Amino acid sequence: MVFFIKKDQMEKVRAMKQGTDRMKAYQLLADICRFNCLSSIKVAGSGHLGSSFSAMDIVVYLYFDRMNTVSEGFSSNNRDIYFSSKGHDVPGLYSVFYALGILDEQSLFMLRRFKGLDGHPDVGTKGIESNTGSLGMGLAKGKGMAWAKQKLKSAGHVYVLLGDGELQEGQNYESFQNIVHQGVHGLTAIVDRNRIQTDKLTDDIISLRDLRKKIEAFGWHVMEVDGHNYTELELALNTRATVKDKPCLIIANTVKGKGVGFMEYKGDGKLYNWHSGAPDDVNFKNASEELFSKIQVQAKALGLSAIEKTEVPQAKKGVTANVSKEFVSKAYGETLVSLGKDNDRIVVLDGDLAADCKVRDFEAAYPDRFIENGIAEQDMVSTAGGLARSGFIPVVNSFSSFLVSRANEQIYNNACEKSKIIYGCHFSGLLPAGPGKSHQSVRDISLLSAIPNIEIIEPSCAAEARMITTYAIQEAKTNVAIRMVIGPSPRVLKLPDSYTLSRGKGVVLKEGGDGVILAYGPVMINESLLASEILQKVGYGLKVINMPWLNRFDLTWLGKHLTARSIFVLEDHSTRGGMGEMLLRSLKEGGALPKESTFKIFGVEDEFPVCGTPWEVLEHHKLSGLELAKRISGRDIDPALVSSSTDGVYNVDAPQ
Amino acid sequence: MVFFIKKDQMEKVRAMKQGTDRMKAYQLLADICRFNCLSSIKVAGSGHLGSSFSAMDIVVYLYFDRMNTVSEGFSSNNRDIYFSSKGHDVPGLYSVFYALGILDEQSLFMLRRFKGLDGHPDVGTKGIESNTGSLGMGLAKGKGMAWAKQKLKSAGHVYVLLGDGELQEGQNYESFQNIVHQGVHGLTAIVDRNRIQTDKLTDDIISLRDLRKKIEAFGWHVMEVDGHNYTELELALNTRATVKDKPCLIIANTVKGKGVGFMEYKGDGKLYNWHSGAPDDVNFKNASEELFSKIQVQAKALGLSAIEKTEVPQAKKGVTANVSKEFVSKAYGETLVSLGKDNDRIVVLDGDLAADCKVRDFEAAYPDRFIENGIAEQDMVSTAGGLARSGFIPVVNSFSSFLVSRANEQIYNNACEKSKIIYGCHFSGLLPAGPGKSHQSVRDISLLSAIPNIEIIEPSCAAEARMITTYAIQEAKTNVAIRMVIGPSPRVLKLPDSYTLSRGKGVVLKEGGDGVILAYGPVMINESLLASEILQKVGYGLKVINMPWLNRFDLTWLGKHLTARSIFVLEDHSTRGGMGEMLLRSLKEGGALPKESTFKIFGVEDEFPVCGTPWEVLEHHKLSGLELAKRISGRDIDPALVSSSTDGVYNVDAPQ
Repeated sequence: MVFFIKKDQMEKVRAMKQGTDRMKAYQLLADICRFNCLSSIKVAGSGHLGSSFSAMDIVVYLYFDRMNTVSEGFSSNNRDIYFSSKGHDVPGLYSVFYALGILDEQSLFMLRRFKGLDGHPDVGTKGIESNTGSLGMGLAKGKGMAWAKQKLKSAGHVYVLLGDGELQEGQNYESFQNIVHQGVHGLTAIVDRNRIQTDKLTDDIISLRDLRKKIEAFGWHVMEVDGHNYTELELALNTRATVKDKPCLIIANTVKGKGVGFMEYKGDGKLYNWHSGAPDDVNFKNASEELFSKIQVQAKALGLSAIEKTEVPQAKKGVTANVSKEFVSKAYGETLVSLGKDNDRIVVLDGDLAADCKVRDFEAAYPDRFIENGIAEQDMVSTAGGLARSGFIPVVNSFSSFLVSRANEQIYNNACEKSKIIYGCHFSGLLPAGPGKSHQSVRDISLLSAIPNIEIIEPSCAAEARMITTYAIQEAKTNVAIRMVIGPSPRVLKLPDSYTLSRGKGVVLKEGGDGVILAYGPVMINESLLASEILQKVGYGLKVINMPWLNRFDLTWLGKHLTARSIFVLEDHSTRGGMGEMLLRSLKEGGALPKESTFKIFGVEDEFPVCGTPWEVLEHHKLSGLELAKRISGRDIDPALVSSSTDGVYNVDAPQ
Repeated sequence: MVFFIKKDQMEKVRAMKQGTDRMKAYQLLADICRFNCLSSIKVAGSGHLGSSFSAMDIVVYLYFDRMNTVSEGFSSNNRDIYFSSKGHDVPGLYSVFYALGILDEQSLFMLRRFKGLDGHPDVGTKGIESNTGSLGMGLAKGKGMAWAKQKLKSAGHVYVLLGDGELQEGQNYESFQNIVHQGVHGLTAIVDRNRIQTDKLTDDIISLRDLRKKIEAFGWHVMEVDGHNYTELELALNTRATVKDKPCLIIANTVKGKGVGFMEYKGDGKLYNWHSGAPDDVNFKNASEELFSKIQVQAKALGLSAIEKTEVPQAKKGVTANVSKEFVSKAYGETLVSLGKDNDRIVVLDGDLAADCKVRDFEAAYPDRFIENGIAEQDMVSTAGGLARSGFIPVVNSFSSFLVSRANEQIYNNACEKSKIIYGCHFSGLLPAGPGKSHQSVRDISLLSAIPNIEIIEPSCAAEARMITTYAIQEAKTNVAIRMVIGPSPRVLKLPDSYTLSRGKGVVLKEGGDGVILAYGPVMINESLLASEILQKVGYGLKVINMPWLNRFDLTWLGKHLTARSIFVLEDHSTRGGMGEMLLRSLKEGGALPKESTFKIFGVEDEFPVCGTPWEVLEHHKLSGLELAKRISGRDIDPALVSSSTDGVYNVDAPQ
């Protein structure tokens, strides 16, 4: 059972008369917000607890005591502005918004759901001032806002919360320099110094060393406080108001997971478990009960009646999808370890995502050929350039949306040198969609397409991931970008025994005579197969081709297989700049496109990818097997056909 | 007349017997290299004198005294490695390479020419260790090389020269952090602290403040020397060798333009004139004579016979093209000034390229709505995001290859907020090709294509630039990227009086019944017209359409005009990910592509854009009017038809 604490209970705290210890009231409110935040993440199934909790006291103090935002209203130019540059701590902020009446309880439990609350902040949500989630942009965005206030002579101050891991990102230092030089006043940076990034100590990943000294050297006034001590926070912000000639940065020393004993970082050097992801039922129950007890104790001490909790109303349940235990990235990681044994030129680079990118085993096996580069993708990619020039085979890893976008020019620059680098582009494609559009990567093919010497390849299954990784290391003459879905494969494909990876050629997964669809990656191949299975029941034969080569096409092979009158491409990408457009051109220019055939690209079409469960998001973008079957056949199809149409590996319930 | 000093003259200096004042010999060699560098830039017609001269003494000292590179050979793992991260000072380096016998005299005077020496370093040139030119990547690339040396236990040290303006780029600070944390020894950074960036003081653009203190705060050992004093350089490098626990950075205080009195920065706060570009004949003569006199005085003092100069052999002359006096960016800049008068929400942002981007007039007219952001594109773009959220209309300016690539994720992040920002993307396309592939921007359309709410538009002429700028500011509902050729328009188009900008529609510039070509921007439209004019003489009618909308297509309009059997698109871009692929898909999916028609995209095809004169580069990529005429008609065409075929505005000589 999941409980939450209603707003009226918080009103009791806020209604306490003057003279009460404000700070104690804030502390109680913060713990209530932690309680609600925990429940919202539990219901969502994922979310960032650790830093929602470490930043909670800062956020509560700002909104309940310091800022005029609620009274001025979000459309007032004179409002104070707060946002978190790291963004992933937004579940904590949502719980504060609920406490303030900005969000209602229905929204609070629609975290990471379609038309609910995005996994990373979006200005479409009331109260959110800036889209963040990709790190390092917040200071500059805050600078723009503070510059605007200065220009318009508006009231209000801008507070930007920074993560400490985030300070590995170079963009921050551009802003540290520029804010001072440009004389932008009216902005305060607060560092949530919880000392942990994804799952390791910042000091272990890339140490910030003496942060105070560093930022002071950039010309800032730096203060340091206990980020859970309201009196210290207040004092620092009061001092801030008196510093007229410099921007201020407050280092708020915090504890990741603050508020729940077993979630607090113990300084024991072990991996931290509560950065992201929802706790299991037992841990959730323990955490929730511990918080609730603390809340009662504090309420009593303040002379308040017991704080009541209410069961979370049954949220509109997400459709669950059976998935396999296969991860393409796991096969990739294992292959790297295996190839690394006989090839000491392989060097793996990571940007603080070693576990997610499945390169931790390589780190363990060959620590002297593993470079942990922190959240500094530009430096990582250019370092790989230097390594490649020195005869190594660098394998660079991060999430696609950060790696290919943020370090795009660095990738181009390396490519110009005609050395070989392998880019492990993780979390490619539309799903999982819970983290939202800062993390969903549906632009990466387009971002690499005009670099002449990069082959972009995406495995459909673990077996193919092994082939591609081996090819990239052992055979490829140019750069290779391996695009990988991060989640489990919806179903495990069995490729024909005779199948071998061959440049520009795909493999037929299912025959059909009316239309042919080319897809890539486990998610969209599954939807294509689903569509084919559904269509079979209505008498339409859809051939499904797995096309792992996203920018290299063997026209002879394709000519043989694209014989149907209707040709479709299903992108795990935007419809613009993806595989489909390049393929169409190759076919057309090469005379391999049958004159009578139609050609249609499915993918994320002219909008940003939405946040939600896989089913919600596939349905919204009309990319689910069912929607594809409708679009391909032009017929209305009974949803009841869906669940019975699958082969038993991937059962999707009918939409609710 | 252009002279140079032959290698044998330098051998005289190098052959002086032990006991001679080494430092004086280096000084003389440096001035001889300056002399040759000046001549090579004069012959090339462009190049960066100021920092070639400021860095010269450092480069001479390293190669002639400190580094084992020449004796070890460039393929030895044990060699010392030097490269300049800013890269644009490479003419200076080439002259040192000539002095060392790495480059021959023929190469030296093929600067910025096809199959000559690239305008920015390329590893295809002997002696060049790393491709640079886009700023801020060098430290990381050096880190990769130094890491490799450490791993392979090779000898040799890595020296990376940094510009001081370059230190505005955030990537440097990622590297400053990571080099220390990762314990990468064997790398020394040297800052060519000449205190000037493009044409203003670094302190005026974005001050680095106390650079020593700043870098020390990152954990580096910092030394400061006079960068023209060999004794101080030597001392610092000797000290460097004794510092075992930290990486070292040497701040070398230099004078931009060092060596020629009137090219040296006077500290008078005026714009600096000698950052890039070749001096005119008078200034060249004066500079050359001054250097030559100094050389003789020094030689005499060293007891050497007079140093002889030789006339530069007539270089293979570049084909000159007549161009108009029109610049599309000038019209853009003027329109901004004009619109800025009545609209105080327009804020112009610049990344140290105000003159090139033609926004200096806006700066002068509305200094309080002009934000000079230095070489920090990420910060600039995110700042624009904050401004847009605050109700301003930010107009962001830089070179396309830096703006759209380096700040790509920031552009996407802003776009997600659905505010409106205008991106002035300057130096778009293939020409001018002298600076080389770090500057030629043939990927920018692809980099923006998958962002749903950005319209990419490119003016064909000044009149259209005014329309597009006005549309972007006054009418557009979404982001607009205005793609602009930076050079003068080869010919001035006269658009029909009735022409108005209308989303997705182009304008027919020339009729023809056999084929139709869609092109955009003054350079490629000129080549299309040229092709059409040539083809007319051989009886082939080529319709030419100016298509300013690069990712928005009006299929009705296009359907009316794309009636020819052969449809061509001429990209000022890679053939991949450009306008053509998007257009083909729209036509095909929308049923607007005649079944019998062929479709072919011309552009930079599967290679990096080459460096050279416009004619060389257009010919190489087969994009000149003549080559296009051949490719379109499938016939061999007499080059003699070319010069007579033009309308008199753009006369191209026959190829030599």
